[in-house]
Parts: sequence; structure tokens; C-alpha cells
Amino acid sequence: MREIFIGIDLGGTNVKIGCFDSNLKLVAKTSIPTQLELGPESIIDRTVQAAENLVLKAGLSVDNICAAGIGSPGPVDIDAGIVIATSNLRFTNVPLRQILSDRLGKPAVLENDANVTCWAEHVAGAGKGADDMVLVTLGTGVGGGIISNGELVHGLGCNAGEMGHIIIYPDGRLCGCGQKGCVEAYASASSTAARAAEAIKAGAQSSLKKLLDEKGEITCKEVFEHVAAGDKLAKEITQDTAKALAILCIVLLHTTGPERVVFFGGMIGAGDLLLKPIRKFFDQYIWTINKEKMELCFATLGDDAGIIGTASLAIHAREQGRLG
Amino acid sequence: MREIFIGIDLGGTNVKIGCFDSNLKLVAKTSIPTQLELGPESIIDRTVQAAENLVLKAGLSVDNICAAGIGSPGPVDIDAGIVIATSNLRFTNVPLRQILSDRLGKPAVLENDANVTCWAEHVAGAGKGADDMVLVTLGTGVGGGIISNGELVHGLGCNAGEMGHIIIYPDGRLCGCGQKGCVEAYASASSTAARAAEAIKAGAQSSLKKLLDEKGEITCKEVFEHVAAGDKLAKEITQDTAKALAILCIVLLHTTGPERVVFFGGMIGAGDLLLKPIRKFFDQYIWTINKEKMELCFATLGDDAGIIGTASLAIHAREQGRLG
Repeated sequence: MREIFIGIDLGGTNVKIGCFDSNLKLVAKTSIPTQLELGPESIIDRTVQAAENLVLKAGLSVDNICAAGIGSPGPVDIDAGIVIATSNLRFTNVPLRQILSDRLGKPAVLENDANVTCWAEHVAGAGKGADDMVLVTLGTGVGGGIISNGELVHGLGCNAGEMGHIIIYPDGRLCGCGQKGCVEAYASASSTAARAAEAIKAGAQSSLKKLLDEKGEITCKEVFEHVAAGDKLAKEITQDTAKALAILCIVLLHTTGPERVVFFGGMIGAGDLLLKPIRKFFDQYIWTINKEKMELCFATLGDDAGIIGTASLAIHAREQGRLG
Repeated sequence: MREIFIGIDLGGTNVKIGCFDSNLKLVAKTSIPTQLELGPESIIDRTVQAAENLVLKAGLSVDNICAAGIGSPGPVDIDAGIVIATSNLRFTNVPLRQILSDRLGKPAVLENDANVTCWAEHVAGAGKGADDMVLVTLGTGVGGGIISNGELVHGLGCNAGEMGHIIIYPDGRLCGCGQKGCVEAYASASSTAARAAEAIKAGAQSSLKKLLDEKGEITCKEVFEHVAAGDKLAKEITQDTAKALAILCIVLLHTTGPERVVFFGGMIGAGDLLLKPIRKFFDQYIWTINKEKMELCFATLGDDAGIIGTASLAIHAREQGRLG
């Protein structure tokens, strides 16, 4: 009988659902509105119903379903299967793995969304073949996941891989986390935009000034657009973002020593405009006694990373005999 | 039949050798002079002879020997069992695992010495019970080892865990590795002493000045002694060492998220004079959104860490079916 694994990517607006076979081949996918206001039990009910409909529409039976994986924002207690807290889903201590498993009548695994993305790129994307890799998510914040010896690293309180909060400039810019000088305080989309706005308000010349005056704010995307258009300040701001990320990569090299650091998220839309200076600063700041072959690259899976990663984690748990 | 595992700690001056049972209980130990000038084959010949004598003197037969582990300075290719290079043993590409296994007639494992110490503290010392831990060695340089998910992390080129070369002050003090602003450039014994000497030469008042004038140099131990005696500069220098190590701990917390960071090496002789300010700066610089329970502590095994760690790695490899 063909075995089907369900991958579920739980977001604040939509829930993405994918059905995969045991070789991680996509059979079918869909998405439903999250409707947060109805609460976690309703979200899972509707998700399971949609998953079962997918399976039926693919000409299979719900008996073909082996297991499911679900990814959630926020800190997650992996052993207990609980979402500890997530501001954008408004969940606190929700036993999401058990709820999913009960509704589906099959075993389930739960993982936080950054780790899911990391695992997805590891098994099917830019990190394929690298038993030691790191994923760095570049969006409003900076996060990520770490794989060492072919396994996700969870660490103390399942809080490993908070790469955005690695301190690179002690006593530097204040971060939302309460620390100073975090990677996130320089290199996130919001920090990149904020540094540009601050420089303009302090008197720097820039083609971004008009935008800032008109709208009262600028975005990271606009900073990158003005780099492409030749604006000097936008270029300096982007260089500092890239330098922060390059220093982060050196820190990672000397910690878990990944073969590859894979960047993921909205900011990678900037392409070479961002990747080239990251690589340049990495080459400039890295030690000279041992030229490592560590690769810095962009993720390849895009929006499907969540369903691929969660389905793959369910398959992986089955292979390791860790499914209930 | 009682199974014996040999642990070998290869140093530039002496080779320490321990015989352990399969529960890691020490049966007997000894040491022999390394005599580097005779080359690796002679070192291993004499080491194996000494190990076999130990076993015989303990009333056992060489048939009781199951396997051996050996720890070496320098980068080591774990999969190939080769010491790639080590300046203080003057080895280059020495297949140490095979040489040991051939002489002993039993399987062997090879690991670099910092990882061996990390593993020893993990199984029998200050890191016991912590499946995610980091060891930081504080000596002439700063090094270490990382355990995640209960296994040593080797990373790219077996070069993971080079904690001394994590950059904490980009564009800061030049490190011997070619980078600027490494932990090692601030917090090693030699950097701590060098920073004190530089400050005195630049005109700072200190009770260390007399020593520096007389000997032309000062040591880290002397800096610590003058802190205890109330010298203000010595205290400032030590605070900066502690701050660098505290920032390192925050970096580690946000990377692999260890339950415990264990400091090892000559500098921990300073005791609370060093540990207290490390903890103080850690509490001061760590994020406020999630007060982690990560422990910062000193190693407990001392000189026996090398033989305990190597014997334990041989036992561990046997348990995992990885011995030849």
C-alpha cells in the first residue's frame, strides 16, 4: 500500500497542506485560511479534513496516511509536542502534536517553523547532502536552524539556532530581545530599513529621502531598489547588513562548522546585490590559516519549504522508530 | 571476560595511558616520555608496550583489551583516522589510528584533544547529564568542543568548536589566526597578559609594572595574583577577559543552546576571581525575553580528562557498532 505523509505549515493567515509519498514526492497540496479566532482545535479539525480530502482526490484512501508533521512559529517543546508561545498565532502551551494526532488517528511530529525550513533545505534544497548545515532566515527578524551530524539541534529549552541574537557588536544597537549588538539589530529587513531612515534623519544625502518624507517610513526592499539605482547611502546600509551576516557566518564556521550556510526569507529576493557583499566580507574577515570551503548560498525551496520539511520530519521520525 | 579499554593522551612531553573497564572505571594508569624525535611509530610502539604492561600488572591478559582511543593535538580527520598537522608534535598527515590499531592488534579511535576533553567532561565531569554542552579550553589559546544531541560535533574539515576564533569585536585586536577581534585575542592567557603589558607600557599605573620592568614580560597568572592583591589595572584587564568569555557564552546559547558551558585549562586555576565576573557579564548582556538556565561552570577532571575521554570514546564507538 502506498504510504502517505502529511506536511502542515501553520501560518497566521493560511495553513499549507501537502501530501507526500515515502520518497518525499509531492502527491497533492492545498491551503486553507487559518481563521485564528476559532482556536487551535478548529484549525486542526479543518486542516485534517482538507488533508483527507486531498488524499481522496488523489485516488487514495485515508488508510494510506501514515503520519503527519506540523510546523509552528514560536518556541516549541519538541519532546512534549507543545507550542509554548507564539505571538502571531496567539497560542500558549498548546499540545498541538496530540491534537493533530487525535484528529488524524495517526502519529504526528511537531517542530518550530525555522527548524522545519532548515530541515526542508537539508533534504531537498540548497543544503542537500550537507550533514552539517545552518539555515539563516532573513525577514522582519533573523532566525534559523542548525543541523549537525545530520540531525536538527534543539538545545536548551528547544531554543538553539536563534542566530539573530548572536552578539556581533557588544554594546551596539539595541535589539528587541533586550540585548545590544545582535545580528538582528543590523541585518534584519526592519533593521536595515531603520538604519537607512536614521541616517537620512541625521542628515545623510540619499534618493530614499523623498520616500521617507512622503511615507514617514521606508522598507528594506526600497533600500535594495535604491542600491540598484546607484544611491550611495543605500549601498552603505546594504554593505553593513552584508558585513553583519558575514561576521555571523564566521561565528558559525567556528562553532558547528557547517559545510553550507543557507539564507532564506524575503530578503534573499535581493539576489546578488546581497549575496555578493556577504561573500566579499566573509573572504575579507575569515582567518587566513585555513581557507575553509564553507559555502554561502540562498535557499531554493521557497513557499513549499514548510510542507516539504514537515512531511520529511514525519518520514524521518518513522525511519528512526520515533513515531508513536 | 573483563573487557579493558585503553585511553591514550598524546602530549608533546608525555603520553598518558589509562586502562578502564567497560563502565569507565579506572583499572590502572601510567605515563611515558613522548620522545618526539623518535617519530610517531616509536611513540605508538612504546605506548602500546606500556599499556600492555599495565594490563598485565593489573592481573589481566592482553586478550582482555577490547579497543583503544587516542587523543592528539591539532586538526584531525576523524573519518580517515589521520592527524592532519600539529605543530607541537611535528606530525603531518600521520595515520595515527591505523598505526595504533596495527601495533595493538585491536580497533582504535582517534579524536582531537579538545574534543576528547569535552567528551570526558560530558561523560564523567562537569558536563555529566547534559546532552547539549560546550567545553571551552582556556590556556595559551582558546579552543574547545561541542556536544549536540549527545554526540561530538565535527563539522567541515573536523574544524568545528574553534571557539577561540569566534569574532566578538569585528575589526578589533589582531589574532594569530589572521582574523581581528577573536575571543582568543582578548581572553586567552597570553592575550590577557599582553593586554596588561600593553596598558602599562601606555602609562597605566599598576603593581604589575615592577614585574614587567624586571622580567620584560608578565603572565596571566601574575595578572590574576595582582587582582587578588587589589591592583586596579589587573582587575580591569581580568574584567575584559571575563566580558569576552561572557559574550562567547551568549553566542553559544543562541547557536547550539548548550545546557552547560564548561571552562577547562590553566586559567580556571583563578577560580571565582574569573568565574564570578564571567557570570556577572553573562547576566548583564543576555537577552531579557527568556532567562535561560544555561550554567557556566569549571571542569572537574583535570589531568585525567585525556585518558578518560579517549577510553570513553572507544567504549562509545563499540556501543554504536563503529569499531572495526
